[in-house]
Amino acid sequence: MIMRPGIRRFGIVALAAASVLSGAPAPAARRKAAAAPAAAPPAIAAEVLSTRSRMDDDLRTLCDEIGGRATGSRAYEAALEWGKEAFRRAKVDSVELESYDAPAKWEGVRAAASVLQPRRFPLRVVSFGNAPSTRGTLMAKLVDAGNGTRSDFDRLGTRARGAIALVRTKPMTSFDDLFAEYLAGPEMLKAAQAGGVAAVLFTSTRPRDLLYRHTITFDGTIIPLPIAQVAREDGLRLARLLERGLDLTVSLEIENQVGGPWKGKNVVAEIRGSEKPDEIVLLGAHLDSWDLGTGALDNGVNCALVVEVARAIASGPRPKRTVRFVLFTGEENGLLGSRGYVAAHEAEMDRYDAVLIHDIGDGRILGYFTDGRPDIHGSLGQALAPVSGWGAAGMNDEAILGTDNFDFLLEGVPNLIANQETARYLADYHAASDTLDKVDMAQARKNAAIAAVAVSGIANAPTRLGRRQSRAEISQVLEKSGIADQMRTYGLWADWESGRRGRR
Amino acid sequence: MIMRPGIRRFGIVALAAASVLSGAPAPAARRKAAAAPAAAPPAIAAEVLSTRSRMDDDLRTLCDEIGGRATGSRAYEAALEWGKEAFRRAKVDSVELESYDAPAKWEGVRAAASVLQPRRFPLRVVSFGNAPSTRGTLMAKLVDAGNGTRSDFDRLGTRARGAIALVRTKPMTSFDDLFAEYLAGPEMLKAAQAGGVAAVLFTSTRPRDLLYRHTITFDGTIIPLPIAQVAREDGLRLARLLERGLDLTVSLEIENQVGGPWKGKNVVAEIRGSEKPDEIVLLGAHLDSWDLGTGALDNGVNCALVVEVARAIASGPRPKRTVRFVLFTGEENGLLGSRGYVAAHEAEMDRYDAVLIHDIGDGRILGYFTDGRPDIHGSLGQALAPVSGWGAAGMNDEAILGTDNFDFLLEGVPNLIANQETARYLADYHAASDTLDKVDMAQARKNAAIAAVAVSGIANAPTRLGRRQSRAEISQVLEKSGIADQMRTYGLWADWESGRRGRR
Repeated sequence: MIMRPGIRRFGIVALAAASVLSGAPAPAARRKAAAAPAAAPPAIAAEVLSTRSRMDDDLRTLCDEIGGRATGSRAYEAALEWGKEAFRRAKVDSVELESYDAPAKWEGVRAAASVLQPRRFPLRVVSFGNAPSTRGTLMAKLVDAGNGTRSDFDRLGTRARGAIALVRTKPMTSFDDLFAEYLAGPEMLKAAQAGGVAAVLFTSTRPRDLLYRHTITFDGTIIPLPIAQVAREDGLRLARLLERGLDLTVSLEIENQVGGPWKGKNVVAEIRGSEKPDEIVLLGAHLDSWDLGTGALDNGVNCALVVEVARAIASGPRPKRTVRFVLFTGEENGLLGSRGYVAAHEAEMDRYDAVLIHDIGDGRILGYFTDGRPDIHGSLGQALAPVSGWGAAGMNDEAILGTDNFDFLLEGVPNLIANQETARYLADYHAASDTLDKVDMAQARKNAAIAAVAVSGIANAPTRLGRRQSRAEISQVLEKSGIADQMRTYGLWADWESGRRGRR
Repeated sequence: MIMRPGIRRFGIVALAAASVLSGAPAPAARRKAAAAPAAAPPAIAAEVLSTRSRMDDDLRTLCDEIGGRATGSRAYEAALEWGKEAFRRAKVDSVELESYDAPAKWEGVRAAASVLQPRRFPLRVVSFGNAPSTRGTLMAKLVDAGNGTRSDFDRLGTRARGAIALVRTKPMTSFDDLFAEYLAGPEMLKAAQAGGVAAVLFTSTRPRDLLYRHTITFDGTIIPLPIAQVAREDGLRLARLLERGLDLTVSLEIENQVGGPWKGKNVVAEIRGSEKPDEIVLLGAHLDSWDLGTGALDNGVNCALVVEVARAIASGPRPKRTVRFVLFTGEENGLLGSRGYVAAHEAEMDRYDAVLIHDIGDGRILGYFTDGRPDIHGSLGQALAPVSGWGAAGMNDEAILGTDNFDFLLEGVPNLIANQETARYLADYHAASDTLDKVDMAQARKNAAIAAVAVSGIANAPTRLGRRQSRAEISQVLEKSGIADQMRTYGLWADWESGRRGRR
């Protein structure tokens, strides 16, 4: 302890205030936004920005009252009900829960770990998503598995057998770091299995005791061995103790509820088109979250956005094309809901004008990723023209594997992801700290206004946004974007190659 | 989930990297330090900065192998042994464990809480230090106790009876905020007791799920009712739910080991003076820490500093005056060890030239707080002259209640606290994240060199640093500095006034 008095009558003191992680955008970014020409927003945007918006209440209920909602959990069931109710209040034409096949059911129950030898001290841990339980309490030697690469495990040789392997990490400070973390997962798992370890302790990449939850299987299957994340401070301490040559005995107990194949559900709402009801514009976001936080940025805020856009469209003139609003689930477990949706709706894939996915929290929308489709620039530009004054009409042709656009991309359907500023997203990503207090509601409402303009622009356009691609064209996008390589790493390639997933 | 690929072949992407809390000093601060004239360090400083320094190893052992060391715990016992061994290796003349009276024994065992109604979700909590256990699991309504002031509790009226009171907080971003948190504690407790609440949930002032441990009694006694800190995200969520008018039932289970009066121990080492062995210069730091982290910044790094200064002085010519090195314990519980030391050594208080306390982590030393003694500027300036080129010879007459100088101040003994940059200290203060990875060892060694120069300068000076003050003079310092008011708030005034504590 040292406390410094607030009253200072003797000397001159300049107390250096500690800088804190601020969620607020940098002043420069603010100024830039403010400098954009202030055009009157279109009617649909004005509706979203009006006091009739229900976004705040919807999001507050979802995050605070329902909370973290891992697919399959009781909170997930409540979230499905929330979605139905919210769409009904939005006065859409119809709302249904649609089932999909999920390969396994997973729910985290509890995790505990401690060092037993040479001294006892607790470790703060959480199970990875989709990881199995330990058989009771596992007590084993801790071995240093370096960065968790194949050669790290090879170096351990027979010492790995039956041991708990500590994997070191670098702090995550950028999306590239996060992406590298995901990309390294499959090799780590294979190497750990080959080495015969009993379990893996993965050092959190976030500072200050913060834990988060991911999975490192990408198809919804159960991870082949127990893997827990250990708080960064604890992981670094273990690594130093191992470096000093200490023999550490660690106990690890993970209890997760793991079940076999089951039926997950998506919430699907619709406003039928007045002129071309068979053509579909789909606006989606994932409703599920991991359970440590309350999934406010990932992705509650965009579920509230989808509902709000539905409300705004339903309150105005009927769009020419049908607009479908989907709250997918199972996204965090491996894009299960959107995959299931595409499988169930395979026959209508030719009729999708566009699929728009929002999944980067409350970050300011800069425009949309076209996911490898420079051919749609013209039509997309027309749809986004009303929000170009807000700096929201940018197009980026990067193609992305990692959210619910993916199975639509594999079908050749024009698919867009909102391209949002990411600065406010990373620190709380999948973490216990992803809670409502992090959300900038003013920005979230503005994002909803932009999404409403985009969706209604596409739904009312004289021509379709773009045509469906052939399998050859899709293949080209996958290879050119590097997604093919990622699919190979994540074990998703065989299904595409064999035609079990995506356009044949 | 959204993952963004690292490979981008289509579009132009500028990924905004999230800024992270960096522990490193700002570039400007570095430059300023580097621009100071580079004088050859005195021999004692050179010894500390040599490869013979054991500071790194000493600190690593204390933090990583022993860990968090709440007074009375098993780790505290191990830390006492660490201190004895470290001083022996430093080749001091003597090292002893000296006992003191502690009013109560306290150790945290576990704490758990969750919301039961209207939905179940867990809350992350930790008991306050020196708080009692709940009787089994407490299940009660949660009431909104605002900021925890008397009028907040008054407003609750009879609704407070038997309830669990949620106290809201502002984020802590400066020492003034921290000080305000401490200062508000006693009133909050009295008001909570008067209102008849069963327990208090205090919202963490730190972001991103980070917990820390304090006590809010300042004399080592047990807090009169269970009080737990709840993670900031959880506390804010609870506050929002209460604001919406929801009836929340919360369960809270706190298990702490609480015992009556016992004997704590300090580690006291000595290098006897060659010319004036009866005059004493004391260099101290507190060895205990709270147990969530490993007490690296608060205050392991300064314990290692004290040992290192002992080693450096023992390796050179014997100082003229006796130098005593004390690792106090019970500091976090209410300055118990230093209070006990002063009580036991009351008879020799006239013979203390100076007491130097280090307790602001690894922050760069800017000089010393004189704790209300402008009269010692001349002599202190001479002792610090060799480090003035390092910007370490500043003097600040602020007087401070909050670390082990306090009972020496009450005795009128010249007492100094190292005035250190605080920027790297606050974020991890008393928190689970106060771990070795936060320590800038190069700066810590430089601080040790400065402390060695200061101690050896005072111990070898032709005259004493300053004379002992009379009770009247001490009173004047207490009133003028505002410490008298703080003592009244913290319930420490009666002991001073009655002569049970401090110079009579």
